Amino acid sequence: MVENGVTFINVIELPADEVDAFVEQWRERAKLMRDAPGFRDSRLHRAQLPDTRFQLVNVAHWDSAEAWEAATGQPGFRAAMRGVPGVVSPNPALYDVVVEFERP
Amino acid sequence: MVENGVTFINVIELPADEVDAFVEQWRERAKLMRDAPGFRDSRLHRAQLPDTRFQLVNVAHWDSAEAWEAATGQPGFRAAMRGVPGVVSPNPALYDVVVEFERP
Repeated sequence: MVENGVTFINVIELPADEVDAFVEQWRERAKLMRDAPGFRDSRLHRAQLPDTRFQLVNVAHWDSAEAWEAATGQPGFRAAMRGVPGVVSPNPALYDVVVEFERP
Repeated sequence: MVENGVTFINVIELPADEVDAFVEQWRERAKLMRDAPGFRDSRLHRAQLPDTRFQLVNVAHWDSAEAWEAATGQPGFRAAMRGVPGVVSPNPALYDVVVEFERP
């Protein structure tokens, strides 16, 4: 369980041939998040197969929902978000871990 | 980056009022995975808000794609999967981490 933190997951639907360009853009936006107060880590996952419905899934951890909201409310981040092409359908949301298993 | 491992992500679409029952069923199936060779960890994430499109996202880590395939090919797991209600729409796939940031 992420101690008193929160998990941000963005399930991103986009055509497989748009992924390379999107990842580079995403890298620049994510740098803005890295320096934000309360940021812990983020990992952008790319599907191994091109026919996977959700080609990209970002999983990030923050100290709190408030920290995440403050970071995404920054003018610089909002401006960067306007550059996301229309074919991209993000599904950003906050999550809590409800079941967790580790290798015995 | 998960050293020489692979990330399994299942983006699960289901009505918010089905989540409680599904989580309990999922817990039982996941126990079968926990003891499988090559399993590392799994975290089932539940959306904080009921109107989030994907109410549940499972993120697990395995030593290899082969280990994951062998585990999900077990007769016991396959039988348990047949119990998943029709209203649930899973999107299971293997992913690689392509961009990773940690708090500086």
